[in-house]
Amino acid sequence: MPFVRNAWYVAGFSEEVPPGQMLSRRVLDCPLVILRGSDGTLSAMVDQCPHRFAPLSLGSFDGGTVTCRYHGLGFELEGRCVSNPHGSTAGLATQTWPVREQDGLLWVWPGDVAERLAIAPPKFGMLDEAEAFVRRGYLHGNADYRLMVDNILDLSHIEFLHPALGTPAVRNAEVRVTVQEDAITVTRAMSSEQLGEGLSYVYGTSGEAVNRTMTVTWSAPSNLVLTVDIERGVGPTGSQSLHLFTPETDRSTHYFYTASMSRRVADPDQFDSFANALAGVFLTEDKPMIDAQQDRIGHRELATLKPALLKIDKAPVLARRRLEQLIALETAGRA
Amino acid sequence: MPFVRNAWYVAGFSEEVPPGQMLSRRVLDCPLVILRGSDGTLSAMVDQCPHRFAPLSLGSFDGGTVTCRYHGLGFELEGRCVSNPHGSTAGLATQTWPVREQDGLLWVWPGDVAERLAIAPPKFGMLDEAEAFVRRGYLHGNADYRLMVDNILDLSHIEFLHPALGTPAVRNAEVRVTVQEDAITVTRAMSSEQLGEGLSYVYGTSGEAVNRTMTVTWSAPSNLVLTVDIERGVGPTGSQSLHLFTPETDRSTHYFYTASMSRRVADPDQFDSFANALAGVFLTEDKPMIDAQQDRIGHRELATLKPALLKIDKAPVLARRRLEQLIALETAGRA
Amino acid sequence: MPFVRNAWYVAGFSEEVPPGQMLSRRVLDCPLVILRGSDGTLSAMVDQCPHRFAPLSLGSFDGGTVTCRYHGLGFELEGRCVSNPHGSTAGLATQTWPVREQDGLLWVWPGDVAERLAIAPPKFGMLDEAEAFVRRGYLHGNADYRLMVDNILDLSHIEFLHPALGTPAVRNAEVRVTVQEDAITVTRAMSSEQLGEGLSYVYGTSGEAVNRTMTVTWSAPSNLVLTVDIERGVGPTGSQSLHLFTPETDRSTHYFYTASMSRRVADPDQFDSFANALAGVFLTEDKPMIDAQQDRIGHRELATLKPALLKIDKAPVLARRRLEQLIALETAGRA
Repeated sequence: MPFVRNAWYVAGFSEEVPPGQMLSRRVLDCPLVILRGSDGTLSAMVDQCPHRFAPLSLGSFDGGTVTCRYHGLGFELEGRCVSNPHGSTAGLATQTWPVREQDGLLWVWPGDVAERLAIAPPKFGMLDEAEAFVRRGYLHGNADYRLMVDNILDLSHIEFLHPALGTPAVRNAEVRVTVQEDAITVTRAMSSEQLGEGLSYVYGTSGEAVNRTMTVTWSAPSNLVLTVDIERGVGPTGSQSLHLFTPETDRSTHYFYTASMSRRVADPDQFDSFANALAGVFLTEDKPMIDAQQDRIGHRELATLKPALLKIDKAPVLARRRLEQLIALETAGRA
Repeated sequence: MPFVRNAWYVAGFSEEVPPGQMLSRRVLDCPLVILRGSDGTLSAMVDQCPHRFAPLSLGSFDGGTVTCRYHGLGFELEGRCVSNPHGSTAGLATQTWPVREQDGLLWVWPGDVAERLAIAPPKFGMLDEAEAFVRRGYLHGNADYRLMVDNILDLSHIEFLHPALGTPAVRNAEVRVTVQEDAITVTRAMSSEQLGEGLSYVYGTSGEAVNRTMTVTWSAPSNLVLTVDIERGVGPTGSQSLHLFTPETDRSTHYFYTASMSRRVADPDQFDSFANALAGVFLTEDKPMIDAQQDRIGHRELATLKPALLKIDKAPVLARRRLEQLIALETAGRA
Repeated sequence: MPFVRNAWYVAGFSEEVPPGQMLSRRVLDCPLVILRGSDGTLSAMVDQCPHRFAPLSLGSFDGGTVTCRYHGLGFELEGRCVSNPHGSTAGLATQTWPVREQDGLLWVWPGDVAERLAIAPPKFGMLDEAEAFVRRGYLHGNADYRLMVDNILDLSHIEFLHPALGTPAVRNAEVRVTVQEDAITVTRAMSSEQLGEGLSYVYGTSGEAVNRTMTVTWSAPSNLVLTVDIERGVGPTGSQSLHLFTPETDRSTHYFYTASMSRRVADPDQFDSFANALAGVFLTEDKPMIDAQQDRIGHRELATLKPALLKIDKAPVLARRRLEQLIALETAGRA
């Protein structure tokens, strides 16, 4: 299964790469090194010297030039070789990918550079720390990124996998799936839902029954926004989370997530409680389940195993279909 | 190398699955979950939900229904879906294998269900705890189950691999191989054998020379009964052991074994000594040797390596040949 | 990528196999056991019994016969079966490889035995302990042996990977590459080089600038001699090292090395300092870099990745080309 390449993928959080530092991470099965120059300039290079494939991330970086520790070739951030102690630099370069930073996220573009010009990385309003409390987190999943997309696109699972977050009202929710070209929105409206103790505290609903709406928007290839809106007597409240999946290999995934709540509806303790709960269930409930699914599926494509299809699979199935179309289009474009 | 499928294989010991509990174990390269209902009913299900392949063994079992922890589908012990919180249960089921319990062993049948009707799991008299002391044990072998069958079918090795169990008399034993359709019996009669100190204690032979006969019966595909009979002045004695091999994968095996001695010929201390000796040599002598053989053989079929054939290989070779025939018959039957 | 087989490879150091002992080691992807008889006779056997492929190294060795622990077959050092407790020894043998000992090195020959007659293992004068201090060392590399050959054949890397051993003078050195049929010599002459503190002590140059010449001679398939010659006021000094690479598998390598200095130019402390420095950089600088290269290259052949070629690659490229020719000749010879 190839990947969608003409897309922005998160390769890291801003704070992982301070000025003058570098970070090595495999993305779409390619070893990358993200570098930030002393002046803030970012670069995403294929993390191997073109000479003998030594990882550049084992070398030294002076804030402007990364120097291979093996034979001393130096490359500036655009990839051009600027120093060859053994001869000419002509024709020597590392491959670079477009990289962009926004709201604390580092995005890379593995595809055709020309295509990228028309497209900006996704912008997420909930990451504005003036308006909201924001927490970032990372998990490594031993699974195909599509299983992780499925997991968020079908939140019917929270009743079963996350007893602290879901209730029996979830299964009776009114669900609406809206399809745009490269995005799918699933709205799940629970009426008179009796939230558990933890969420009652987080949302300040003091145990009263509430109407809770969860809206998940998937954007191709693997960015998901989850908004929880709660009506209650004293005014609405809610929370947001981002679920940004970047394939590491065809069966492992970088999971970058954020939790946020508006400063107008939560105090720091409520938000901490919310962010801790999310981090906890991702690590101890979602990840083991998805890794176990992948273990069962093994090296096979899910579809070839003829999984039983339920109504709840509508959005995941549509997303997978759209991914296939995008990949087919890219493949045709390259042919 | 495919497996014989129309056969009963041990999937576990009875005590591994108390009422209301479940046990996950890979058998013939298929993930199985063995469940025992509150009323004692057993079930062997493929351990993956038909919806998204989450392991059912990660779910909850109330003694009648196993519920997938991911999306809440519930299955009763026959595999029928009895609960779908998201819609109809029509057409939803897990695959189940016939399962049978006898004398503390849980047997499963991976093959055609119709074929099974004619065949009962093997019955072993020596497991009758009223008559005999019985100890059960389990080992995991990192080897093709056929190497483990070979090991029991050719006991000439005990002189070399198990100094506590074998003596030089073994090599001079009179050996008789009897072949029935799906069974092979090897009788090995040692005359005036001077048993070691440990076995002299176990069999109460006080150091006198004895006539010892070992009879191994292999039944396809991988069940072996080993009976040791010893003549001595004060009346015969002896012991029995079962060696029941279940392929986990094509290069790993579940080894279920039992040790037993009649209460008429042994006291509890003698039996303990016998059972401990067996467990010890299996773990520290047989397993390392067989795992090492597999390491040398790697992913290749033994026969393609043209092993030197000795007289002692007669029974193992015949058993392997019969396994090939059975597999060919099954393959033809399915064609 | 197959290996050159008609060649001597180091399988171990003499002291690893005392009389009456054996050593199991994989060489050219074949499990070998090196045995030394009580009378000193050496043998290199394929480390598996021809009967059922049990490793002979798990058996017992009485200084003349190695006996398989599984079924008791005994083999003398030439490989002939001299004992079969279960029948005739006729036609039973283990495969042996020619083995030769010289200057503390155990050499084996994986190829055609007839070809070997014309060729002796390489002889290295610097291992004469009457003349020189000698230290032996071993490292396991997780890399194709050719990456390890490249590493020594192109010493331009010492300036970058080994700050304690290289200086900026290395890049400006005069380099001469001399090619013979199965050998390549690279001479690298540094003028007025300011050695670091460590090397100044080793060579007794007290901080003065020196002319240092490094001469590396590669002999097919993977033996390298590195000689360092230093001119100085009080008379020349220098050091030698051997780098003998034996493929374990196609992506792992036994690295046998020696360090030596003439007793006329160094005292024991200077030599210790030299030998410790070498062992340290091999372990903490060369090995991590070469393993990382292999990680990037993965299962692919280096050439298919189209590495950028620099002037410094001349000798490594020629050596790889000669290896290909040798392998092609051997393959043709067998066809």
